[in-house]
Amino acid sequence: MKIIVQKYGGTSVGSIEKIKNVARRLIKAQEAGYGVVGVVSAMAGTTDQLIDLAHDITDAPDSREYDMLVSTGEQASAALVAMAIKSAGSKARSFLGHQIKIVTDEAFSKARIMTIDAEKILEDLQYNSIAVVAGFQGVDEAGNITTLGRGGSDTSAVALAASLGAEVCEIYTDVDGVYTADPNICPTARKINKISYEEMLEMASLGAKVLHSRSVEIAKKYNVPIHVRSSFSQEEGTMVTMEDGEMEKYVVTSVNYNRNEAKLTISDIPDVPGVAEEIFMPIAQANINVDMIIQNIGSNGLAALTFTVSQADTKKALKILKGVANKLKATSVSVDEKVAKVSIVGVGMRSHYGVAAKFFSTLAKENINIMMISTSEIKISCVIEEKYTELAVRVLHEAFNLSSE
Amino acid sequence: MKIIVQKYGGTSVGSIEKIKNVARRLIKAQEAGYGVVGVVSAMAGTTDQLIDLAHDITDAPDSREYDMLVSTGEQASAALVAMAIKSAGSKARSFLGHQIKIVTDEAFSKARIMTIDAEKILEDLQYNSIAVVAGFQGVDEAGNITTLGRGGSDTSAVALAASLGAEVCEIYTDVDGVYTADPNICPTARKINKISYEEMLEMASLGAKVLHSRSVEIAKKYNVPIHVRSSFSQEEGTMVTMEDGEMEKYVVTSVNYNRNEAKLTISDIPDVPGVAEEIFMPIAQANINVDMIIQNIGSNGLAALTFTVSQADTKKALKILKGVANKLKATSVSVDEKVAKVSIVGVGMRSHYGVAAKFFSTLAKENINIMMISTSEIKISCVIEEKYTELAVRVLHEAFNLSSE
Repeated sequence: MKIIVQKYGGTSVGSIEKIKNVARRLIKAQEAGYGVVGVVSAMAGTTDQLIDLAHDITDAPDSREYDMLVSTGEQASAALVAMAIKSAGSKARSFLGHQIKIVTDEAFSKARIMTIDAEKILEDLQYNSIAVVAGFQGVDEAGNITTLGRGGSDTSAVALAASLGAEVCEIYTDVDGVYTADPNICPTARKINKISYEEMLEMASLGAKVLHSRSVEIAKKYNVPIHVRSSFSQEEGTMVTMEDGEMEKYVVTSVNYNRNEAKLTISDIPDVPGVAEEIFMPIAQANINVDMIIQNIGSNGLAALTFTVSQADTKKALKILKGVANKLKATSVSVDEKVAKVSIVGVGMRSHYGVAAKFFSTLAKENINIMMISTSEIKISCVIEEKYTELAVRVLHEAFNLSSE
Repeated sequence: MKIIVQKYGGTSVGSIEKIKNVARRLIKAQEAGYGVVGVVSAMAGTTDQLIDLAHDITDAPDSREYDMLVSTGEQASAALVAMAIKSAGSKARSFLGHQIKIVTDEAFSKARIMTIDAEKILEDLQYNSIAVVAGFQGVDEAGNITTLGRGGSDTSAVALAASLGAEVCEIYTDVDGVYTADPNICPTARKINKISYEEMLEMASLGAKVLHSRSVEIAKKYNVPIHVRSSFSQEEGTMVTMEDGEMEKYVVTSVNYNRNEAKLTISDIPDVPGVAEEIFMPIAQANINVDMIIQNIGSNGLAALTFTVSQADTKKALKILKGVANKLKATSVSVDEKVAKVSIVGVGMRSHYGVAAKFFSTLAKENINIMMISTSEIKISCVIEEKYTELAVRVLHEAFNLSSE
């Protein structure tokens, strides 16, 4: 049996009419000959309401009870979608994490799926019944309800697709695919037809919100094709698959940006072994993710170290840095939140030369100063002044010819 | 270990402040040396919202999915109460039907509890942790979520108390106990301190809404004392227990009324064997409950049969009755919805004579005509004209001295 997994996000099940629309889409897939599994998020707004309730009780809700609470949102929408399918005349059953044994580790609110018992779902599919699975949730081995963190329903869907051997995992959302750049700031941005797991992973970590990295990691590991598309149209969206020859003809696949980082600098520190450790160990212990790091040696033999963190962590990082500066007798610590990270991603970079040079010269032509650089095999990122973000995205998009099919 | 089960209804957990109040009460019971189990309903209003969603999808929601949907209300409040307890510094965990194996039959929306695995809860109690159980729900043997129907959380609480061997099951509600009569129409009504299971069962079936019959049946079977009391005060409420000598000193315990019945009459039917069956078989097959029945034989040798049903069933019953009348060549079928049933209940009736006579003469003194009578060992009910309801309750309350302690 050909199996398809379709995941519908919060906006796609955000009203009774939309829930009925989801039911029709699932039935349509069944009529096309598929064994159909729907994975649903909570109705848009529901999860926020539940989180508000928890925070009205206490500033620091217990994590086990928090998961017990917020998982009710997906349970309700799964039941409603199954109801809608049945009232439209097809067979369906909704399933929770504990009913199909989506077993996770015990890390409440950010649990990782370990195993899924696909048998119960396969049984329903054999009987021509649509399985509607509550996304975002699982159970640990002791039977406690766990949730998978941000983007968790995507992860549920891809993991189910992997364990069922599905032909494709369709991720329905309110945009119609992955774009070469944010269409809001780059009017010539184009929908990408096909993109590799690696590129999608880079893009997710660079600020593209359409898919969460975890789900792409699982898709890559089990080679599950992901189809990102809109639940409000019949248009084809973006396929996320294994890299193939077709993809390489593009040097660059997309331009991305992220305004949520801050740049911290500690100056005049001794340039001796162990200094970096003294700075980054306490940062790591505070659970702060460091993105880029550069170190300069001044003419006086003292070094300056600059790194970026998420703006949410700026205050915490600054406090730690000041403590370290005191200890190291560093002269100054500074912070700059008016920065943005602009990046290009593309598997084609592997086989094309001069991409970085073109990137730098494109920005230079507009007098945009590059503060920091980081690269991977398929990505180049630069930190620039925030005010140039839109301009940088547009000129890079133009320079790498991303608007032409 | 002494164990106490406390059940809090929807109004008792109807807001964040009230949830915190419930947490404080549970902690207080723990500080008094009890192993504490809290059973909670959904926050007031939540279940209605969920039911509305289901009916927006379809007029006849699938019963399995309906239970999946509405059970989320109790899950959320259990999580919130456990959170509130923890944030107040005590230990707690919330539990769902599938986590403590509250196994029911497969009758969705009106399931009956078959077994409870108390071990997991006992373990938590040993560790001084308060167990907060989502009321109203269980799972069938296949792991589907079931709900227990009206008053289901009371049933959950009493069943848990029975399986844990609890000292008492406290039912917290928005009234402070069971009254000798409805205080809204009988100002001299008095809170009853102690009442027998049998009396409470009669009262529940006669229209008293404070406890659902099912929970009282279980309490009686396993001899679990129920304490009905208010979550907004520290006052003692009403104990529902085994009959004891103390209770017998009252001849009558309470006066009850019910305006939701209708009286149907079919006249001039042949007085031969099998006629009653011809009338009541189709009524039963339509799932209509018949309460009282009387038959009169007229001077012409033909009989008239009168019976009462719930007003919700009047239309359906009338239609059936007209069909039967045609077949039996009965001359007329009539219906009267302007009736009320007034009853007195008391285990003392068993040992006191003249109770019925006093009941009838009390009504006669006020010129209240009695249309139908039904009695049990501990109950007398009469159907009267609806307009006399309040008067009848007040004079009976007075005649049987119910206002004096």
